[in-house]
Order: sequence, then C-alpha cells, then structure tokens
Amino acid sequence: MQISSSDIWNTVQTIRQKAPLIHNITNYVVMNYTANALLAVGASPVMAHAEEEVEDMVNIAGALVINIGTLSSHWIKSMFRAANEAGKRNIPIILDPVGAGATGYRTRITREFMETVPPTVIRGNASEILAILKDDAKTKGVDSTASSNDALRDAREINRTYGSIVCISGKTDYIISADHTVKVMNGHPMMTRVTGMGCTATAICGAFAAVNTQTSAAVAEAMAVMGIAGELAVAKAEGPGSLQYHFLDALYALSHEDIERLLKIEVSS
Amino acid sequence: MQISSSDIWNTVQTIRQKAPLIHNITNYVVMNYTANALLAVGASPVMAHAEEEVEDMVNIAGALVINIGTLSSHWIKSMFRAANEAGKRNIPIILDPVGAGATGYRTRITREFMETVPPTVIRGNASEILAILKDDAKTKGVDSTASSNDALRDAREINRTYGSIVCISGKTDYIISADHTVKVMNGHPMMTRVTGMGCTATAICGAFAAVNTQTSAAVAEAMAVMGIAGELAVAKAEGPGSLQYHFLDALYALSHEDIERLLKIEVSS
Amino acid sequence: MQISSSDIWNTVQTIRQKAPLIHNITNYVVMNYTANALLAVGASPVMAHAEEEVEDMVNIAGALVINIGTLSSHWIKSMFRAANEAGKRNIPIILDPVGAGATGYRTRITREFMETVPPTVIRGNASEILAILKDDAKTKGVDSTASSNDALRDAREINRTYGSIVCISGKTDYIISADHTVKVMNGHPMMTRVTGMGCTATAICGAFAAVNTQTSAAVAEAMAVMGIAGELAVAKAEGPGSLQYHFLDALYALSHEDIERLLKIEVSS
Repeated sequence: MQISSSDIWNTVQTIRQKAPLIHNITNYVVMNYTANALLAVGASPVMAHAEEEVEDMVNIAGALVINIGTLSSHWIKSMFRAANEAGKRNIPIILDPVGAGATGYRTRITREFMETVPPTVIRGNASEILAILKDDAKTKGVDSTASSNDALRDAREINRTYGSIVCISGKTDYIISADHTVKVMNGHPMMTRVTGMGCTATAICGAFAAVNTQTSAAVAEAMAVMGIAGELAVAKAEGPGSLQYHFLDALYALSHEDIERLLKIEVSS
Repeated sequence: MQISSSDIWNTVQTIRQKAPLIHNITNYVVMNYTANALLAVGASPVMAHAEEEVEDMVNIAGALVINIGTLSSHWIKSMFRAANEAGKRNIPIILDPVGAGATGYRTRITREFMETVPPTVIRGNASEILAILKDDAKTKGVDSTASSNDALRDAREINRTYGSIVCISGKTDYIISADHTVKVMNGHPMMTRVTGMGCTATAICGAFAAVNTQTSAAVAEAMAVMGIAGELAVAKAEGPGSLQYHFLDALYALSHEDIERLLKIEVSS
Repeated sequence: MQISSSDIWNTVQTIRQKAPLIHNITNYVVMNYTANALLAVGASPVMAHAEEEVEDMVNIAGALVINIGTLSSHWIKSMFRAANEAGKRNIPIILDPVGAGATGYRTRITREFMETVPPTVIRGNASEILAILKDDAKTKGVDSTASSNDALRDAREINRTYGSIVCISGKTDYIISADHTVKVMNGHPMMTRVTGMGCTATAICGAFAAVNTQTSAAVAEAMAVMGIAGELAVAKAEGPGSLQYHFLDALYALSHEDIERLLKIEVSS
C-alpha cells in the first residue's frame, strides 16, 4: 500500500462531491466545532442521540462517529443501539474513547464497545489506547499521552483481537491495521491548545471512511489532512483562538498543492 | 404591507434599546453560536430546559425559541410545557423543526407541536416544511432542501390549518402569512458551510418578534438582517471559519446604511 | 495582603508549568469556550458529569468548577456528588450560580449548595449574589446586575455565614474574604456581548485556585487576568465575534509586561 498526495486529494474531492452524511453521537464540548469541521471538509454532519431515532439516522449515514467525551447512561444506550445498527448495515463505526483510563467508567464503556460492537476504527491518544487492554495505564484527564512504543504494541494486539483499525494520535500519528502501519508526521503542537482537535480528527476520519472503503488508507488520509490543515492554520494564527477559525478555513480551501507540499507520511508493511 | 430598510432599522434599534430576553430551548450544537448571535444583535439570550423552571423563564421572556435539533424525551416535555405557557401569555413561539423528515421521530414531534401548540412562527428549509403535512418528503440529514414550489404550497396550507406564519429558508427565503408572501433574497451560499446558521436565523426571528408585534414583518426583517450580515461577513471571510466571527461582528455593527444598500425584499399580497 | 503584577505573573507561570486539571460540571452553552480558555491560560480542562464518574474525576483534579447555567435534575445530583467529594479532599470548589434569582429553581439549588457544600469560592454578578440571602432580588435572565452596594453587603454576610470567598463581577469586580476586599477594575463592556465570559471567569478562577492556595488572592489574580486579556482583545477586535478569538489568543500570549502595564487593582483590609 502506498498513500500519495494524489490519493488524498482524490478522497477530498469525493467528499466535496458526495457530501456524505456523518452521524455523530459525540460530546457536548466539541459538537459545534466538529460539525463545522465536517462542513468545512465538505461532509454533512448530523448530531442525533435519542434512542427513538438513532437507528433511523444511522441508516441514512455514510459513517457513525461515537465519542464518549461527556457520556452518561442514557447516551450510552443510544451509542450501542446506533453501533449495532451500523454493524448490521456495514456502515463504518469510528470510536473515540475520550478519557479512557482517566475514570473506571470510561474504561469500562470503551471495553464493552470493543467486546460487543468492535468499531471499524478506534482513534485515541496513547494513554487512551493503553487503557483498553490493561488496567495500569496512567492518564491525566483527557489529554494525556503515554509511551508510543507501548501503545503501538497494544494497538497491534487490539487489531488482532477485535479487528479494529487503531489510530494512535500524537506528535506522530500511527494507523495500525492487519497488514500495514502508517505513520503521519503532520500537525503542530499548538493544535493541542484547542479543545476537541482529537475529537475533530475522529469525525474527519468518519468523513474519509464514508467515501474510501479501504479504511486504513482513509484514516491515514484523514489524519494527514488534519495535520496539514493544522500546519496551514498555525502559520496564520496568533494563538489557539485564531487557530480555530484558520483551521476551518484551511480545511475548506485545502488544495492538491497544499497536500503535495506538506504531506509527511510513511507506510510500512 | 411594505417593508423598507427604515422599518428594519427601526426594529434593530428597538432590539438594541430594549434587549428583549429570548428564551431558547435549542440544540447542543448551536447553543453557543445562537447565544452569541442574539447578544450581537442586541438581545439577551437565555438557555433553560429544566421542567422545573421553563414556565418561570418563559414568563420573563419576550419570545420563546424551540429547536428540535438534538431532541430527546426529557427535553420534549420541557418544550411542550414552555410552549403551553407561552401560548397562554401571548408570548411569540418560534419553532425550528430541524431534521423533520429525516427521522420519523422528528417528524412526529413536529406534527405534535403543530396540532397541540401551533407556534406563532415555524421556520425551516424546504424539506423540513414539506415533512409537516405529508409522509413522502425526502431529506438527507438536517441540511437538505426540496422544491420551493411544493414547499410554498404546503406552507400556505400550514398557515391556513394552524395559523402559524411559515418561513421557508433557502437561496430565497419565503415568509408566508394569511395576507402576504414576502421574499427575501439576501444571504450567501457560504453560510450553509457554518453549522447552525438556520438555527441562528430562528433565534434572531425570536428577537425581532419580541419587539415587533406585526410578526410576519418581524420575521421578514429578521431574515433580511441575517442575509445582509451574512453578505457583509462573506465579503471579509476567507472561509467558513472566519465567516463565523465576521457574521457576529456584522450583526453587532449593522447600520441603516448597510441595510439600505443591500436589502433585497419583495412583498406580494 | 498586596497583589502585584509579579504575583499574578508567578501564578500564570505556575499554571503554564503545572497544567492543573480543572474538572468542570458546567452548562452546555459555554463548555467549548471555557475549555478553550482553560487551555489558552495553560490549564487542562475536563468536562464530566456522569454520576458514575464524577468522584473519580474530582480525585485527579486541582479544582472543581460548578456552573448551573443549564441545569437539570440529573446534573444536580452529579454536582452535589462531585462537590461532596471535593470537600472531603480539600479540592477547591468554585460555584457559578448562573441565573440565581431569575427562576425559583436556580435560587433554590444555589441556596442548597451554600447550606450543604459551601463552595470555596462563589462568583456571580450582583443580582445573582443578591439572590442568595433574600427573595426580593430582581433579575432579567442571566445577565442582569443590581446595585453593587447591596451586593457587597450581602457578600460580606455570605462570607461570614458560609465561609465562601465571594466574587461579584461587573464593571468593577469585588473579591470579598474574611480579611480583605479586593477591587479589580480591568475589563471592557464589550465582553458582556460574548456569551459565557462570566462562566469563563469562574473557570479561570478554578485554574488559579488550583495552583495558588491563598484562594482570595488567586481569585483576584484570575479576575485581573480575565480583564487584562479582555482589554488586549478589545483593542484588536472589530466586534464581539472577533473578540472571542482575540481573547483566547491574549490569554495564551499574556506577558508579565501586559500585566504590569494594565493591572488596576486595590486591596483594602
């Protein structure tokens, strides 16, 4: 597998043409920003969490994005219901286990997901990924990272056990599938000073997975686009406040030339 | 009826002077942005959804805005309670049936509203308006539009049946009341790349209806101000990210001269 | 007690170095903005409200921020549970009684907090503070203010009765503790046209209280930083839309020199 700037550009163009509907059951903090990021990249976001309608909504969606950032019991029921329906219909499920490892509740729910409706893709930072298999992972709130090597080892085991593609985001993003490991080295540290940039990456993965059925490539493409848009935005920003809007503008205006010039990606088998 | 730029400017000035309290029971995605838009135009937003307090809040409000964008059963109870109270007190109710037609749940709740507490104003895109009377409307998520002619026909029937003023937003906005049809041709397509611009229009309708008791004129004025502020913002924006803040700045700084220069409105009996 | 620009700068630097985790149980409207403000100032925000996890989350936090802006019964249970745990662990609790006085529900919950888990700090506008002890306070929605003199009198009584440090925000902010009254005269009226600036002040108080154990000084420092960042932002803003992002950029880039140049503070015993 190779991922070239032309491949990424093709997927971006397909999103802009097809405007896939992305069904998000996500957290209160990031709903507005991730909806705006999905719109900026060319997708159609919908947020819906009522048990009465999640199955109907999944059925018209191109991907289901589940994010446990501000979860509570009612929402969990809807998340599982939506995921079960998506599984039956072969609609890709992207799970963001925000804060797994920070509280037992989040760890438990994340594991229950893996066991009962293993997502097509799980995307988290190193400490969230480390919380899935073992109890000793340490985290601080929802933003922590841990050793990449340990997380990579666990990611491979998660992939073997549950079949999910695992994306570990950080300074370097790793996308682990059965056959390949992709490293994406785009992005900028100032992005960590904007809340929900990780959650946004997860939502953008949904948009890419909705139009590119080679899911591990789709996720790598999405992470590259996130990072490239971030670099373009940081170049214009005076801080994390202006970064927010420059990032959306960059996603909206992203060109083949931008991708060609900035892409830093490595695929190994 | 005529609606001149001076009429609109008078209403804007009244909002700025009186700062009417607008009670919103709205969706999670747009709460922040609609609150900021209401503040920018000069109104006082309040978001409150607890059953224990919605009646008290309605009683100190100049308008009640109800938006079903992320509805669930607890919120629905509060929406009906608030609407019943507003009805008793002659406080204008503005309903935004986000995603009606996309799921049976949203269609059902919207129809229940029309039957039991018909709103003073209902504002939606063409596919949402088309979902109210018939079951065959097609929609994709919450952003779709359908034929304007069909929607206009249904809007007139909705107005006859329920008494509600109907606002169909789109490239051209239509405001249908018993005696008039108003067309507002302001706005810009980039506004559809910002989440919640429709929801914001609904909230702004609330602010105008709170101070201008000729409600169909108030709604047309609000839609014109939305569109004009959008045009002013797009002229400065580099994409949908910067559009967001330019739009709020434009609402805040809107002048009589801006309205005079940009207003595109037609009233027919 | 004196509070110099160097004291404030020391606390800002400590926040940037230690990145204290601030646990917020806050309202839907401001979650995104307050999370971004906490990140911009150097803290680590987490939003979590599920009964199943609030105690775990409080236990890894440096401060607990509770804000009743969009409260409902489930959330109240979690707020009290978190506050009880924070009390046991000597983790500072900062309460924002948004809209106390506007509805009986909010007034009642605020009073129940004061009686059962008196917060380390309570921060509100004059009408919210006036609603705590007496029933005759008048308010309009969540943004009103009332006479500062009456509020100061009540603030002193609240401090004597409950031990809480009281911060009354307005054109001048007052921080009342047993031994001192601090006046902070920074800020700008345009800040009131951005939703949740008060809520953001409360969250920032949490960040300062997490690293400066002299809590009344910490709150005064936080209010000064809010006001100074606001002044820096207004100088660059064209309205309340651009103010939002300039404010976050200003918090992020705040320097000792900014504080020295702009600080307006008075401490009296």
